[in-house]
Amino acid sequence: MGKQAVKVGLLGLGTIGSRVVELFESNLDMINEKNDLQLVLERVAERDPEKLKSLKIPAEKMLTSAFELVKDPNIDIVIELIGGLEPARSLIREALENGKYVVTANKDLIATHGDELLELARSRNLNIYYEASVGGGIPLIRPLKHSLVADRLNRVVGILNGTTNYILTRMSCEGLEFNAALAQAREKGFAEADPSSDIEGRDASYKLMIMAGLAFGCSIDPAQVYVEGITGITVGDINYAREIGCVIKLLAIGEKLPAGIALRVHPTMISQNHPLASVNNEFNAVFIEGELVGEVMFYGRGAGGAPTSTAVMADVVEAARCKEGYVVCNGVEKKTTGTLYVPVEDLSSSFYLRFLAEDRPGVLAAFSKVFGDNQVSLDMVIQKRRVGDLAEIVLVTHLVREAAFRTAVDQVMNLEMIRPNPSTIRLMI
Amino acid sequence: MGKQAVKVGLLGLGTIGSRVVELFESNLDMINEKNDLQLVLERVAERDPEKLKSLKIPAEKMLTSAFELVKDPNIDIVIELIGGLEPARSLIREALENGKYVVTANKDLIATHGDELLELARSRNLNIYYEASVGGGIPLIRPLKHSLVADRLNRVVGILNGTTNYILTRMSCEGLEFNAALAQAREKGFAEADPSSDIEGRDASYKLMIMAGLAFGCSIDPAQVYVEGITGITVGDINYAREIGCVIKLLAIGEKLPAGIALRVHPTMISQNHPLASVNNEFNAVFIEGELVGEVMFYGRGAGGAPTSTAVMADVVEAARCKEGYVVCNGVEKKTTGTLYVPVEDLSSSFYLRFLAEDRPGVLAAFSKVFGDNQVSLDMVIQKRRVGDLAEIVLVTHLVREAAFRTAVDQVMNLEMIRPNPSTIRLMI
Repeated sequence: MGKQAVKVGLLGLGTIGSRVVELFESNLDMINEKNDLQLVLERVAERDPEKLKSLKIPAEKMLTSAFELVKDPNIDIVIELIGGLEPARSLIREALENGKYVVTANKDLIATHGDELLELARSRNLNIYYEASVGGGIPLIRPLKHSLVADRLNRVVGILNGTTNYILTRMSCEGLEFNAALAQAREKGFAEADPSSDIEGRDASYKLMIMAGLAFGCSIDPAQVYVEGITGITVGDINYAREIGCVIKLLAIGEKLPAGIALRVHPTMISQNHPLASVNNEFNAVFIEGELVGEVMFYGRGAGGAPTSTAVMADVVEAARCKEGYVVCNGVEKKTTGTLYVPVEDLSSSFYLRFLAEDRPGVLAAFSKVFGDNQVSLDMVIQKRRVGDLAEIVLVTHLVREAAFRTAVDQVMNLEMIRPNPSTIRLMI
Repeated sequence: MGKQAVKVGLLGLGTIGSRVVELFESNLDMINEKNDLQLVLERVAERDPEKLKSLKIPAEKMLTSAFELVKDPNIDIVIELIGGLEPARSLIREALENGKYVVTANKDLIATHGDELLELARSRNLNIYYEASVGGGIPLIRPLKHSLVADRLNRVVGILNGTTNYILTRMSCEGLEFNAALAQAREKGFAEADPSSDIEGRDASYKLMIMAGLAFGCSIDPAQVYVEGITGITVGDINYAREIGCVIKLLAIGEKLPAGIALRVHPTMISQNHPLASVNNEFNAVFIEGELVGEVMFYGRGAGGAPTSTAVMADVVEAARCKEGYVVCNGVEKKTTGTLYVPVEDLSSSFYLRFLAEDRPGVLAAFSKVFGDNQVSLDMVIQKRRVGDLAEIVLVTHLVREAAFRTAVDQVMNLEMIRPNPSTIRLMI
């Protein structure tokens, strides 16, 4: 066929990067054959020379400077797997300015600077592909961009973080407390040395922003996403959840409401019968809800080098087909700006509330009155466990606007017989 | 922008066709805006003039001759929603020969003549899109073609027919026998007047052939697909399944084995804990298994006019982007020919077997000896129910090659104390 080689440069040899190199070694012939391409892994840049040494590639292909790679006129496609905002952002800008297509798994960067980078790509008649930024090997970005394009999408709900889902599953199945479950996740390779972005919900929020931006066709302001992690969840909460037929999952929820877009990540009690309740360990799953298509669900391993490397490679194939003139890359991902948001305070939920109170007459009457005065109606009250000489009280409310619930809780916490620091978890029925 | 209109012609105003017309009415502006297109529904052809009358489109856009439409030089994209092999096949050929892109939901035709039609499309530098042929609105074809392209896929397992899944769910939940559940499915609009293609498994087999052809990159010979429907399943079988912790689902299973491809559709007992066990009523779900990506699952409404119309429209958008030069449409779907197949007789399964026997000494010894002589080892024997003066015997075997199992069953059925017509269901552990 005399096809021209499409030369790929790879930045970063971490978990995903090293698997992408393996994929080039193991599957390249199949991939080239299937797609009528002649992809070549031309150069690899990695700051740590030790990591480069372990590669079975010629020394002249290896670089320690990523900036040198993105300027190399021989490279057609740059795979950015360094992660984080800088220098990744500058490297991607530089790559685009040098006429290269970009493939990335960088969710932080795409969530916060994706619009700017995609605009730059468009202005150069190039594109950025980021399937690997959400859901590991689960196809999500491409279905959102192409398959669900004819419907009005109103809701995206998912378990988008494998680390926290693994921790919550172990807490639920083995009765481990948070720290013990986190330690186990680290041992099994499901949590990083610094797990804060995962356990505090930021990782899931970036993925939600990327999906919501595509699903609702609008630019997303990171400051408008409500984010709450799982560090406050106890085995006690999980046991109470079980008593009321629920499990606790860290959900990312994006909704298009009449008043605007609502985006939030928080631990959520869902019915044991909900399909997301049986998504366990490191698995991810996302429901996308459209007016006509109804609910569509995608499920699989949401992280890990091997699955994610297949998503990176599928994007490399698309970029190469673009470079080869099979696909022209503009006209997609038009987003509206000036998005209106609905803050979490204005959303209505049922709430689970757990707190400690003195065990004496009048306590129930006192907090019940405060809730009643604030129009917060209670669906369930459980008082059966004691902590020292205090009574542990668990409430579940009917649907109530979050602001009203918070006001009521603040007032309850001011009652002298109630101890501070309650635990609050939203329910999704 | 001065974009040129892309003119669409629609063939067939059945369940899907009428929803596609509605979609053109309700969502066209959004779709055109999002995709930088100017799609227009130019003409509609339907044999039944009554159906045309109900449309809110000008009389000059309506035709009763589909062949006139596919020759209309104004039409750029033909949507074929007539179904069946002929005249659909001739119409699609004619459309391609007249330079038109084709979008179809016709699973029978794509499964059996897809390679021939796609070859014709390729030779004219056109393409055929058929996302709507499998799984209604669930994105399956595009993920197989583009997202999972870098991995070696070894297995496709799914519930691909909504009618039979609805029937089996009602049999299981309400204890209805097959005919009563079928009647209920008809009432609810989940079964057609002639449900034979659904209940005999042919509909699922067409969808399996389409998915397996893409997943394994090979042409599929329809004669090599083992197909068994659900008409023989009784509430008794479902109850026995429950006793051993299983549910019965009509599964479509495609596997790439060392010796070749194995394709089969048959009722299957699966563990109640298997994710497919909780796919109920008219819902569909498919697991795709790749070496690197692991298991990825897609779930949603697999039929119905509204969901399927969104898949049709997403394909129209892709065809229009192709027509407008955004995408060049060759180099995809290269398939190997000369596929080797593994017949179902050579596959190993556990089997559930139910039969009636005279209730007298020596029966157990007699059939046990036959199974033993044929190296069929039994995992479970249940004898607790009587039918008249006969004993109902249920067996579950360990893994055994199907041919050996069948030989043993034939011999057992020849024993004089055993009644003929046993019920056999494969297990998937």
